[in-house]
Amino acid sequence: MSSQPRIAIDAMGGDEGVRVMMAGVALARRRHDGLRFLLFGDETRIKAALDHHPNLRAASEVVHSDSVVDGSEKPSTAIRKKGSSMSMAIAAVKSGDAGAAVSAGNTGALMAMAKLALRTMPGIDRPALAAMLPTLGDNDVVMLDLGANTECDARNLVQFAVMGAAYARIACDLERPRVRLLNIGTEELKGTDEIRDAAAILRAADALPLSFEGFTEGDKIGRGDVDVIACDGFSGNVALKTAEGTARFVTDLLRKAFTSSLRSKIGFLISKPAMHLLKHHLDPNNHNGAVFLGLNGVVVKSHGSANDKGVANAVHVAARLLEEDITRRIAADMAGVAALFNVASKQELPVK
Amino acid sequence: MSSQPRIAIDAMGGDEGVRVMMAGVALARRRHDGLRFLLFGDETRIKAALDHHPNLRAASEVVHSDSVVDGSEKPSTAIRKKGSSMSMAIAAVKSGDAGAAVSAGNTGALMAMAKLALRTMPGIDRPALAAMLPTLGDNDVVMLDLGANTECDARNLVQFAVMGAAYARIACDLERPRVRLLNIGTEELKGTDEIRDAAAILRAADALPLSFEGFTEGDKIGRGDVDVIACDGFSGNVALKTAEGTARFVTDLLRKAFTSSLRSKIGFLISKPAMHLLKHHLDPNNHNGAVFLGLNGVVVKSHGSANDKGVANAVHVAARLLEEDITRRIAADMAGVAALFNVASKQELPVK
Repeated sequence: MSSQPRIAIDAMGGDEGVRVMMAGVALARRRHDGLRFLLFGDETRIKAALDHHPNLRAASEVVHSDSVVDGSEKPSTAIRKKGSSMSMAIAAVKSGDAGAAVSAGNTGALMAMAKLALRTMPGIDRPALAAMLPTLGDNDVVMLDLGANTECDARNLVQFAVMGAAYARIACDLERPRVRLLNIGTEELKGTDEIRDAAAILRAADALPLSFEGFTEGDKIGRGDVDVIACDGFSGNVALKTAEGTARFVTDLLRKAFTSSLRSKIGFLISKPAMHLLKHHLDPNNHNGAVFLGLNGVVVKSHGSANDKGVANAVHVAARLLEEDITRRIAADMAGVAALFNVASKQELPVK
Repeated sequence: MSSQPRIAIDAMGGDEGVRVMMAGVALARRRHDGLRFLLFGDETRIKAALDHHPNLRAASEVVHSDSVVDGSEKPSTAIRKKGSSMSMAIAAVKSGDAGAAVSAGNTGALMAMAKLALRTMPGIDRPALAAMLPTLGDNDVVMLDLGANTECDARNLVQFAVMGAAYARIACDLERPRVRLLNIGTEELKGTDEIRDAAAILRAADALPLSFEGFTEGDKIGRGDVDVIACDGFSGNVALKTAEGTARFVTDLLRKAFTSSLRSKIGFLISKPAMHLLKHHLDPNNHNGAVFLGLNGVVVKSHGSANDKGVANAVHVAARLLEEDITRRIAADMAGVAALFNVASKQELPVK
């Protein structure tokens, strides 16, 4: 790796095009002075966009790529496509030219490419997709896995908890994040064997830099009394999407209610600053940047429809994880847990 | 069973006490003229409450019970408790004295007792907990299982789809409800083997009185473009609770926003009718009454904190399912699916 930290950017992913990607990266650069960028994609369009961001241009190297992974492309097809901006950005992390990659492209393709090129880090069986969700508390909550693994065993869940805690320590500046497993009740007997076994291991792992506080339920995700929620990718994906859908559902109802009469319309106009606050809090751009944890390298997925502020957030997440060397942190933490897995295995823990 | 339909009411369950339960039953009676009730619980308190509802008193028989199942009691303890109002209400369904039972007590205990006493109906491997959720469309959506079964195989999911459709036909007055399976993507290859196998069976089951339309995702639950969503009890419970939690989260944010300045407070006062509309739409009392489907008898769970209107809704659900003989309908539908299970088994469908 070069002496200065570099981030590889897939400039072509994202529904909003190269301009918005470049505007976002330029915004992020202001927060991270020494950071440099490798920009992969259509050279002409990238250079045109950089004309508006001379500071970013000075900190970047543009690498032309001929092809782009399509949003609807199957991961199995995408990984065979030669020289796409996405695969080149990941290859830069693999070769050490960059420390992290950011893409707003096809999630499935990005995940497949990242896994294939970077491989799962020692001590981790499967990588997970993690994101920060808004809460009513002071901090956001880190939730994982959000869909990388449909089914998970107890070891996977423990590893997700450890990786999520490492992420929360960096992103939320916490010493011992409070960690819970998602379940359908808070009593010890609730849930699947996998969840109960994972809880037993985490309860015993008191040397870890996290505080395991048992189970949590779907209605408590946004309450702000937990820093990390670990779960299998199926229920994590269901929870994330249900939360998004319900937030949209309530705000749609609100819009309907506010336009139902002249009186409501006037009330709405007067309350606009209040509604603006609500919108700001729920704006996904403020929480943009999902991270693939557990790979040999940092890969961040920016939402396809993110604006420049959203892209900046995703790049900021990548920069922080790179600066704080999350991969090394996770490796160190997992070394402490490995012994517990061995004990658990001897007790005939059902490990798939 | 007596000539007139009767519903057994556990008068003691629920946080709001006997009075609210009786007020709710009295409300429901007005919508169902010929309906009669068996009221189980503390005779003195029930009779005192009935003084306010002479019409309900005329249609009811009070049966004294000495004990009550506690809200925090473990199901395993509760089922051994003799003569609780909950167990007596369920026993009345078993003996045929009543056609349905309604309780606002401990969900786990109610589920355990109902399963033990009423047994699973022929053709159904496991009962499921179903509820109606609000949508932006004209109809509510029936979702099941919401937590009765932590893990489910393909047969369970198919049975849930068939039972949910029978429920929607009655409750939403639909001929061929649109049914989808909850998944983490809509492409055919998404999800677990269980989900994909269930989809294959449902796609082949074109004689069923339902229209199987593939998969849906968490963010589309409230969109109103599907009538029944079937899923395993773990993800169903996560989705239901996440939706509840997020709706509360957004309305909490809204309240905060509206009290953040004098201007917002004035806007709030003016928009009160609009906010009232929103509250009405999200009020759980309007959707109260979760149903255990797949048992030899109808059992409805009313929410512990439901008001009289909520209780009335739960009793109305029980009355409708009894009037329309849901158990017979499910049995008839399942007879048509059994053949498909056999074909699927021969094709080495992984059936646990």
